[in-house]
Amino acid sequence: MLHTFVALVSDKPGVLTRVASLFRRLNINIVSLTVGESERPDVSRMTIVCEAPETAAHRIRASLYKLEITVDVDEVGRSEAVIRELCLIKVAAGPKTRSQIFELSDVFRARVVDLAPESIMLEMTGAASKIEGLIQVLKESDYEILEVSRTGRMAMRRGHHTSRVLKALGTPSSRKPETSDFAAKPEPDEILPNEFPHVHEEEEYDLTEAVDDHGEEA
Amino acid sequence: MLHTFVALVSDKPGVLTRVASLFRRLNINIVSLTVGESERPDVSRMTIVCEAPETAAHRIRASLYKLEITVDVDEVGRSEAVIRELCLIKVAAGPKTRSQIFELSDVFRARVVDLAPESIMLEMTGAASKIEGLIQVLKESDYEILEVSRTGRMAMRRGHHTSRVLKALGTPSSRKPETSDFAAKPEPDEILPNEFPHVHEEEEYDLTEAVDDHGEEA
Repeated sequence: MLHTFVALVSDKPGVLTRVASLFRRLNINIVSLTVGESERPDVSRMTIVCEAPETAAHRIRASLYKLEITVDVDEVGRSEAVIRELCLIKVAAGPKTRSQIFELSDVFRARVVDLAPESIMLEMTGAASKIEGLIQVLKESDYEILEVSRTGRMAMRRGHHTSRVLKALGTPSSRKPETSDFAAKPEPDEILPNEFPHVHEEEEYDLTEAVDDHGEEA
Repeated sequence: MLHTFVALVSDKPGVLTRVASLFRRLNINIVSLTVGESERPDVSRMTIVCEAPETAAHRIRASLYKLEITVDVDEVGRSEAVIRELCLIKVAAGPKTRSQIFELSDVFRARVVDLAPESIMLEMTGAASKIEGLIQVLKESDYEILEVSRTGRMAMRRGHHTSRVLKALGTPSSRKPETSDFAAKPEPDEILPNEFPHVHEEEEYDLTEAVDDHGEEA
């Protein structure tokens, strides 16, 4: 099952190494990861998509939250978030085939960002399935795809979520679970170093419930 | 100085850890990193932007190339590549201020991807400077920016570059430096484990020259 986590992390050297090693330790495969600037200059926003059993989600989340670089972690489901990806596709096309590529790119709302004598570069944003749709149509229409580059999925919760985010970013002391709807910080011994545990104490901190339990707090 | 590397890497668990640790060892700060699927199912494409002295570029490239997971590495300059980023911006806006946000998003060619009673989510692609432009205008117009999420820069060389990419992907034996315009594979002892060396043997393998020396091979 695919899980999507949004983590706000301090923008320090080595952040990526720590997050990547964490997933390596938990033995969970990262399907895609994007990191970029957030609404605060010293905080980066990461979207991590990983393949893991359904029961594993809250343990991943707790482990991420335990990293000292982490300001906040959120797990977002498909229905409650906008999940987009950016893709650049370079297709071989000469003067004769160009107009057909233009038509296709119109239908898929792609944009032409480069045009060379023998190739066209398209830019497209959308859900992964839409991007795969365009790539498949291009392939089946016998166009030669020269290069594909994708950013991986980026997720943002729908609607107005100020207090949730600003609370997390505002004061370091907001990391107390009892004052917010964030996940409770797990006890140190709950993080196993070398393998992903078969979850056996879900009842102790049902983070999924805490996540779903957010409303319009503003 | 900012350097942009495009690396084709095997899609295996632990790839991210290895790349992140490499930059950590070289003591080079990664400004942004994106990973996503490429034109081949088992190969991912990474764009890595890092801050490093100009003389360091070819050593980073050689170190990346040395990782066994790496199929190919390319360094791209601003002029010869399309560099794009995807950004999601959530702005607080009610019925009265919505139309002003719509106008701004038209000017910046942003798209409205979500609309809630008290907020609007915009999606925008472009160079980093363009994205920062919109964010700045929104801030200076006193709109409250609730959340910003950015993928980091993704780069693709302009024009037709089939043979370069397909050669790299086609056969494992194409990793011989003498048969292509790729960087020469450095000798094992040239990789220093714990710090970034003050480059002292640039003449031995001037990779930058090899990179610039590509033409339309097709």
